[in-house]
Amino acid sequence: MHAAVMRNSQLVVDTVPDPVPGEGEVLVKTLECGICGSDLHALKHAARLVEVARETGTPFSMDPTRDVVMGHEFCAEVVDFGPNTSASVKPGERVVSMPITFRGGKVEGIGYSSEVPGGYGELMVLSAALVLPVPNGLTSEHAALTEPMAVGVHAVVKARLEPGDASLVVGCGPVGLAVIAALKLRGAEPIVAADFSPTRRALGERLGAHVVVDPAEQSPCEALRKAAKTSSVIIFECVGVPGLLRQIMRDAPHGARLIVAGVCMEDDLIVPMFGINKELSVQFVFAYTPDEFAGTLQAIAEGKIDATPLVTGKVGVEGVAQAFETLANPDAHVKILVEPWRS
Amino acid sequence: MHAAVMRNSQLVVDTVPDPVPGEGEVLVKTLECGICGSDLHALKHAARLVEVARETGTPFSMDPTRDVVMGHEFCAEVVDFGPNTSASVKPGERVVSMPITFRGGKVEGIGYSSEVPGGYGELMVLSAALVLPVPNGLTSEHAALTEPMAVGVHAVVKARLEPGDASLVVGCGPVGLAVIAALKLRGAEPIVAADFSPTRRALGERLGAHVVVDPAEQSPCEALRKAAKTSSVIIFECVGVPGLLRQIMRDAPHGARLIVAGVCMEDDLIVPMFGINKELSVQFVFAYTPDEFAGTLQAIAEGKIDATPLVTGKVGVEGVAQAFETLANPDAHVKILVEPWRS
Repeated sequence: MHAAVMRNSQLVVDTVPDPVPGEGEVLVKTLECGICGSDLHALKHAARLVEVARETGTPFSMDPTRDVVMGHEFCAEVVDFGPNTSASVKPGERVVSMPITFRGGKVEGIGYSSEVPGGYGELMVLSAALVLPVPNGLTSEHAALTEPMAVGVHAVVKARLEPGDASLVVGCGPVGLAVIAALKLRGAEPIVAADFSPTRRALGERLGAHVVVDPAEQSPCEALRKAAKTSSVIIFECVGVPGLLRQIMRDAPHGARLIVAGVCMEDDLIVPMFGINKELSVQFVFAYTPDEFAGTLQAIAEGKIDATPLVTGKVGVEGVAQAFETLANPDAHVKILVEPWRS
Repeated sequence: MHAAVMRNSQLVVDTVPDPVPGEGEVLVKTLECGICGSDLHALKHAARLVEVARETGTPFSMDPTRDVVMGHEFCAEVVDFGPNTSASVKPGERVVSMPITFRGGKVEGIGYSSEVPGGYGELMVLSAALVLPVPNGLTSEHAALTEPMAVGVHAVVKARLEPGDASLVVGCGPVGLAVIAALKLRGAEPIVAADFSPTRRALGERLGAHVVVDPAEQSPCEALRKAAKTSSVIIFECVGVPGLLRQIMRDAPHGARLIVAGVCMEDDLIVPMFGINKELSVQFVFAYTPDEFAGTLQAIAEGKIDATPLVTGKVGVEGVAQAFETLANPDAHVKILVEPWRS
């Protein structure tokens, strides 16, 4: 099949073997697959990712010396089933799935695996137990946003939001926008959102932020202080660059709860005294539960999460490498979808 | 009065002006005052402390270019009152107090202030509103341990301990021992404690640890995994040296809650991916509430917290500088009390 392949830290277009569904697996045709900021990071820091997994004993089977077809935010169409496999879906039906599958007793992260391909290729194998049918009427583009929006839903769950809590979302990229949407879904108020890009600030407002801030003009924590009605505040770090956590810890109000949803793959210098003096808490978050994933699909299908503004571009597999470069400029795009069936 | 004075990052013995109680203040004679690890840090990093306070907008009136009489873990005897001051205590009564006072609308941290002296001098002024009488029968030595033991009580409160949670206490210095005592008070089980020093491990057991570990022989997180009955684990960092947080985040089990009670005054390098992969949370803690402080005094007086083993030495003001050096060796001492009335 045709795919955009990560090979030697580069993205190349090539023909790779079609995946073959094993027992309990579904063969699907990729319809839409979002490009995630983590993929941009992974292309740059693949060796470090593997090293961290090894150091922490986390199962992670990506081998950067072999081909990896990335892509974990997808909507796909059922093509066939592996042997002895029953599923609640039929060929031709559209599905989404959490991007993991189980092979030979091992968990494979779809999109970060050397064993199974992700959505930057024409075909994938999914776990029959995890596929969810796309509700009627929901477009494949929007169904593909289930994964990134579920990241926001999970981050807000981990924040243990209570009525009256004020929220600051630092960064209005896809993760920040997902957090804003999830906060709005929960009825949070006020929601303050910060981004250097006017385009992204506008999207932040559209998704539910009550106040938007340009950090070049005003300290986001200062804006949070002004907007907050109580001293109970939550700050979502949704950027993931070294130095930002240090800065947020310096500026955060006393007792603030920091939720780290941005994925910083480099080492990071913090000042523990900032945390100690103000009794800050820092909750690192990752992914979502199956329930949160299914709930997010439902919320998108019911229009409770408006994911429409996120999609700003579409490319075929030939366009993936260029899209990665384009996404480095935050004013140009938010979410680019890969459509591997495009010629 | 006679005092051990921090002057130009050195401890010197000198005669300094007697403090004069203002309105709402009580003049007291210091009976006992513990030497705290934070004082050792502060002597070394005074300028950095002031800088961090300035950067975070924290009120902090220590000016390291002026004399500072440190000492914030004290038991004292009431001598006199400021003008128009009523108090629930009488001259001759013994008291403890949270180490803060209010002067001219400003909060002064007793022991970290250039305006009011701490307990390494013969006399102090305390806030009449904050003094607590020492219950009959409790020795002044043990009453002086209220402050460090309250640090442990507070850390455990912030950990939101639930029945069945397994705890690991990294470091059995005064902070770690206070945490162990507070965990025991709450009925926590199992409590795993780690320290390189056999003396301190023995104290950890005496204060309530069910398992003690020498990190040179076994990974403390491995011992925690073995002892834990559920996946709900809390790790208390009670050392405060750079690099330790990184190491704990690397070794901690998935979902662990880290409580940072150790006071690391230097910048610290972390690996955010350790936190992200395992969804760790890090709660920095500081001090205690007035209720926790009063409750700790009561628990010590009732024998529910056995602080006896902590006191390993006593010195006069002349001995403070030497005691600071001695305390750098963790096998020699745990808590040295300063008795400024000693000739």
